[in-house]
Parts: sequence; C-alpha cells; structure tokens
Amino acid sequence: MEAHGERLHAADILSQLAAIGLEPDGGITRLLYDPAWRQAQQAVARIMGEAGLSVSTDAIGNVYGKLEGTDRDAPSFVTGSHIDSVRFGGQYDGALGIAAGIAALSKLKQSFGQPRRTLEVVSFCEEEGSRFPLAYWGSGNVTGCKPFAGSLEAADAQGVSLREAMAGAGYDPSAHRDCRRTDIEAFVELHIEQGAVLEREQREIGIVNAIFGQRRYFVDVEGRSDHAGTTPMQMREDALAAAAEMIVRLRKAALETGDGLVATVGMLEVSPGIANVIPGNVRFSLDIRHREETAIEDFCDRTFLSFSAIAAQHRVTARYTCWLSELPSPPMDAELRERLARICDASGYAHLEISSGAGHDAGLFARICKAAMIFVPSRGGISHSPLEYTAPEEIERGCDVLTQLLYQLAYGEEGL
Amino acid sequence: MEAHGERLHAADILSQLAAIGLEPDGGITRLLYDPAWRQAQQAVARIMGEAGLSVSTDAIGNVYGKLEGTDRDAPSFVTGSHIDSVRFGGQYDGALGIAAGIAALSKLKQSFGQPRRTLEVVSFCEEEGSRFPLAYWGSGNVTGCKPFAGSLEAADAQGVSLREAMAGAGYDPSAHRDCRRTDIEAFVELHIEQGAVLEREQREIGIVNAIFGQRRYFVDVEGRSDHAGTTPMQMREDALAAAAEMIVRLRKAALETGDGLVATVGMLEVSPGIANVIPGNVRFSLDIRHREETAIEDFCDRTFLSFSAIAAQHRVTARYTCWLSELPSPPMDAELRERLARICDASGYAHLEISSGAGHDAGLFARICKAAMIFVPSRGGISHSPLEYTAPEEIERGCDVLTQLLYQLAYGEEGL
Repeated sequence: MEAHGERLHAADILSQLAAIGLEPDGGITRLLYDPAWRQAQQAVARIMGEAGLSVSTDAIGNVYGKLEGTDRDAPSFVTGSHIDSVRFGGQYDGALGIAAGIAALSKLKQSFGQPRRTLEVVSFCEEEGSRFPLAYWGSGNVTGCKPFAGSLEAADAQGVSLREAMAGAGYDPSAHRDCRRTDIEAFVELHIEQGAVLEREQREIGIVNAIFGQRRYFVDVEGRSDHAGTTPMQMREDALAAAAEMIVRLRKAALETGDGLVATVGMLEVSPGIANVIPGNVRFSLDIRHREETAIEDFCDRTFLSFSAIAAQHRVTARYTCWLSELPSPPMDAELRERLARICDASGYAHLEISSGAGHDAGLFARICKAAMIFVPSRGGISHSPLEYTAPEEIERGCDVLTQLLYQLAYGEEGL
Repeated sequence: MEAHGERLHAADILSQLAAIGLEPDGGITRLLYDPAWRQAQQAVARIMGEAGLSVSTDAIGNVYGKLEGTDRDAPSFVTGSHIDSVRFGGQYDGALGIAAGIAALSKLKQSFGQPRRTLEVVSFCEEEGSRFPLAYWGSGNVTGCKPFAGSLEAADAQGVSLREAMAGAGYDPSAHRDCRRTDIEAFVELHIEQGAVLEREQREIGIVNAIFGQRRYFVDVEGRSDHAGTTPMQMREDALAAAAEMIVRLRKAALETGDGLVATVGMLEVSPGIANVIPGNVRFSLDIRHREETAIEDFCDRTFLSFSAIAAQHRVTARYTCWLSELPSPPMDAELRERLARICDASGYAHLEISSGAGHDAGLFARICKAAMIFVPSRGGISHSPLEYTAPEEIERGCDVLTQLLYQLAYGEEGL
C-alpha cells in the first residue's frame, strides 16, 4: 500500500517512547505505575490523539485508541501490545506492537477514512511481571483470563503493594475487573521474535502458530558439606556433583524429545559455596516450555524420575517445587494465519510459521477470541536487554503486514 | 602409662581455650592478632606456666613451653599446633594439638621429672589463613619454608595490613624472620582427622603417612545469554550446561584415578542467574589434592584437556586460573610412624595409616626435620564448624600415644 499524505511511522513513535524510562546505561525501565510508566502512557495517549484516534484509558491504565467503524454494533478488531518493560530492557519488546498499531490505524484512516468495522489499538499497562510478582495485569484483566485473586496485596521490591501503587497513580484499585472486554472479535499483536530463528533462517516475517506454555520449578538438592581435602571421593554426598549430573541429563532429554521443547537451568546457587568445602546444598531453577501441556507434563514427570534416581546414586535428596505454571495458549487462529501468509507472499516477504517460546498478551486473547501474532526479527536473538535491535526496514515490513491484515478485516467486504 | 599425682588434662585445657573467641551461635573465631587471639595466647602461656614449663613468646606471637633436658646442646623434640581458627570454627581444630602437647609435657614432668632431651610444646600463631590471605604464618616463619615476600602488606577484609595488625598487637613487623628455628630434631602434631575415615573404619588412631599437596583454580566458562523460551536447544551456547558436564567429567576422572586423589567443585556462580535466561557465564572453583605433585600435575592437565573439549562441543570457551598451589609435604618420618604403630599395638588402640587431605603445620616441618602426625577421630568427619566433636576418651587415647612417643624420644635410652 502507498501512503496518502503525511502519516505517523512506527519507527518514529518507537523513538519517542524509547526516550521514556531511559537509564544512564542505555537500558529502558518502565515499571507498572511508576513515573516513567505514567509518562509513557501519557505519550501513547497523545500520539494516538495525533493519529486521529479517540483515546480512552480504562480502570487499570490500559490506553486505547479507537477508529470507529460504520457498523457500530459489531465487535472490534484490536491490535497492540504492552508499554511496560523489564528492568534495563530494550526499546522494542512491547512498545513496538503499540507503535506499529498506532501507525497502522493512522495510515488506514488517512488512506481510507472510516472503516466498516471498528479498529482499536491498545497499550496494555503491564505484561512483564517485573515490578510485582504477577504478569499480564493488562491483558489478563481485559480478557478476564487471569483470576488475580489477592493480587492487589502483592508487593514490589520496596514493599509497596499493587493496591498502593494503583492508588498512587490515580487508579481505583477496586475497579480492576471493570476493564474486562467481551466485544472483541480478533486480537492481532506485532512483536519482536526475541529469538534468532528468523535471523538464522533469513526470513522477514514470523507467523506465530502457538504460544508455549511453561512451568518453572526450584530443585533443591540436599547432600552433606564436608572438607574437600579429607573426604574420599567415595564417601561424598556432594549436592553439586548430583545437580551437575541432573543438568547434563536434562539437556540430553530435551534434545532427544525435540519437537521444539526447551528446558533451561538459569539460576543455580551453591551452599556453602566455598572452594575447599564439598557443597551440602544446591538450589537450581528449571524452566520447561512446549506448545502442548501434555508434553510439558510428560517431560517433567520423566525429568523428576531421572533426577531422583541420580540423587539416590549420589546419596543426596532432591525436592521439586513448582512456582510458575502457564498453560500453552490455544493455537493462533488458522484463518488469520492463512491471511498473513497470503499477504506476505503477495508482498514478497519471506516468512515462516514459528512457535513463541515466550508468553504474550495474544496468548490470553486466544482464549476468548481469534488471535494472531506477527514476529519481526530480533538481531542476534537478543531481548530483555538494551542491545535489542530490529532494523527500520524490518519494522516497516512487519507494520505493512499488520496494516494489510487490519485493512482486510475492517475495510474488506468479506470480513472474517 | 599411669599418672603420678595431679596433672593437667588435654580436655580441660581445651575447654578453657574453647571459651575464648566463642560466638553467640557457638562457633569459635580467633583470627591472627585480634583480641580473642591475644586472649587465647595469653591463656596458653598461663596454662603452660601452670604445667611447670618455661614459657616464651617469639617475634610473631608463637608461644612456646619448654621442658629443658639434661642434654642442653641437643636439638629439641617439639609438639603443638595452631591457636587460630576459621571464622565460626570448632574448638578442636588446632587447639587440641596444643592442649594435648601441654598435657603430655605436664604428665611427663610430673611422672618422670627432667628429661634427657629437651621437649617443647608450641602454640603457633596462625595456620588457617582466615584473616589475611596467607596461611602458616606461624610454622612457615619457624621453619623458614615460606618466603612470605611482601606478606606484611597483605590486608584483611577491613583493609588492615598484616604490618598494622602486628604492630597493634605489640609485635615488631620487621622481626618476623627472627623466629626461625634450626634446633629441632622432630616435630609431632596431634590433630583431629577432619574427615570420617577413622570413624568409618572404626579406628581410634590415625598415623599420618603423607600430607597432600593441593591446587586451586577458577574455571571461567563463557557462553551467551539468551532467552530461555525462544532459543532452540540446538542454538544455545549455555555456559552452565557446559560447566555441568565438566563437573560430571571431573568426578568420574577422580574416581577412575583413585589412589586417594580428591577433586572438588565447592563454589559455582552463574551469570546472569535468572530462571528464564540461559546462563552466559559461569565461574567455578576447582580444588585438586594428592600426596604426589606429579599426580596433581597430570590430573590437572588431563582435566583441562577434557574441559576444553567439552567447551568446544557447547560452543563456549573455558579459561583456567590457578590461585593456590601447595606442594605435597615430604612423607612423614618412617621411624616415627613405626614407633607410633608399636605404641598403638602395645596399648590396644586400633590404628591405621592415613593420608591428610588438609594441610598442617607438620607438613612444613617435614621439609626441615623429622615429622609425625597423630589423628584422632572427628565425629561425622565434620571440621571448620561449631559441630566439630571428638569424644573425651578419643582425646585421651590420642594424648596417651603422643605422651608415650615423647617419652621414648626424650627419656628413652635409644633416642631417635
């Protein structure tokens, strides 16, 4: 599509947002309801207004920009992503989907005027879980998919409760369930891949077919601290030697299982952690992801069986504590995926179907309506880092695909 | 041997010392030249005096108690150990050898009067290296085996230099080489085993044949931090997965090598250390000990070859930094070991020959004179902990063996 007249570009919007919450070292930190967050949502609202959209903010701080259709009673097509970041994150994760959505609606309005069906772009208040120990505070409340029971009392690292943080930012903590939406026909999210598959495969667009579920555990291995010099190898109850064997086994099992399953030990702590003392205790984290819950379940069962056998061989014990369990999302909508593939083909964009190992707002929408996700490449697969980078032309291509899809949905004769 | 009249008992002396440097949690902390250390050496000097020994303190704070022999020109037989402790250590490590030495000389003097050859008991000022980054400040200076070049400028955790600490405790920092002794014929040390071999083998006395050498390294593994969800298993450069395989390999190699070699990874740190991030960097410690330097050398060479091969398979790099290298001591004196075995047999004490995986003051004396070590059991093999425990009857047996040996050396007709 060609632009008619001046319009907002995704890369420009992104630059404006990237100046908010910028740390001295180049990282971006925008945590739910903190000053940088408020400034960012205000900027989003202002830019939406400049794009000619009707702007509103809901009870928890999600910001919407609406381009109302002539068919006022029909449900909306919504695009967008989240405005919050991890601590010292990059400028693309989340913000790019908002910038692309505003740019798309801006272009559609300027080029084609009022659509038949209502289009909206949303800037969700929270997805990362980086201030409070909860994630998807935005899309979880909008979809009603997350119960969030007792969440208002959750506290951040400084001991401030979510309730206090909401009130401090001018929101009514008791009203968080008011932002639920049941009038959305489809949700489409553009996001950086956060992995290196597109880059490695030299593709420009990823069409997401599934969003992985995940489980996280702590594994606590308890052996016995002994003197490293005076305890013969055969007499040891070395918690780290056992943990190391578990980690080796885990990786082997994940590679053998294949089918996209990933298993990661990201955190490991040794106690007492002294060079000349045999470790008595080790705690390590386990992060297991797959697009099917039964595969996760089965892999965890087999893993813990093998871990317990390793523990017995080392005369140590192992305990497993699940502290996060996220179901895989239902598959992304097949018809939307087909449309995206046809758009890419027609536009000459190299594309592939891809699973998302990271969670996304679109995963929650897949439970209540049609959902789709467009991935653009992440240089080096890097995300959650100031080094996140997606080239302007890659952004432009992703934005074009999004715009074409929204055009088909809201202006096309056929609808979905 | 039967006691004639009242005499000092090792367990009683030990109890007196155990009250000095006692922490609220039951641990004992006596660090070189600190107030608890000074109090302990003053107590040692007082108890030596009560035992009828001539007491002296050398230029760095080693305290000697002497029972002079009729043959004044002959070199001395010396027993003893170190008064300092690790932080939150136990009451036996070090102090027991001093207490046993005083008790032995007390008993010999009371029972048999002046010996033919001079006997001495020494309370070394330092062995553990727990305040300053140097160990054997006591026996290293007495034997002249440690160059200690530049050591006076070594600083403790608070930034206080050894020079300042010495001056603060009333010692002349420039005089530390004055305490060298060249008039010692044999050094005999009684010590807790710090391992569980005697306990497991149900022996009452360990006769040490060798003191292990050791090397300590840091191994730095560098891979690449990536998102745990979006990076397929095959694309990872996981520093922890590589480190785990190294640790498994290390243990296997140590078990296969056998011959008493011990290899330990006591410390391991993961960076960034977050559950959902693939570890980019891992640093772990490596502690390798054996009674022969060539065996250590050979094992390290083979280990690093295999580590580098593992690193290559994981597309990560590994660097090895040696930060401590202690040569094995020469073997303990064969004739003294034979005497000890005969004493045990005659007294009905179950004994065995044992290697010491931990370093000891006796290891330095083995370089300049005859040396021997007597081990008594450590309950559960525990040491460097408030849980250190050796039963009074086990102490009594060890002390009796020491006393009998010193009797043979100093009062016997044959001498050594």
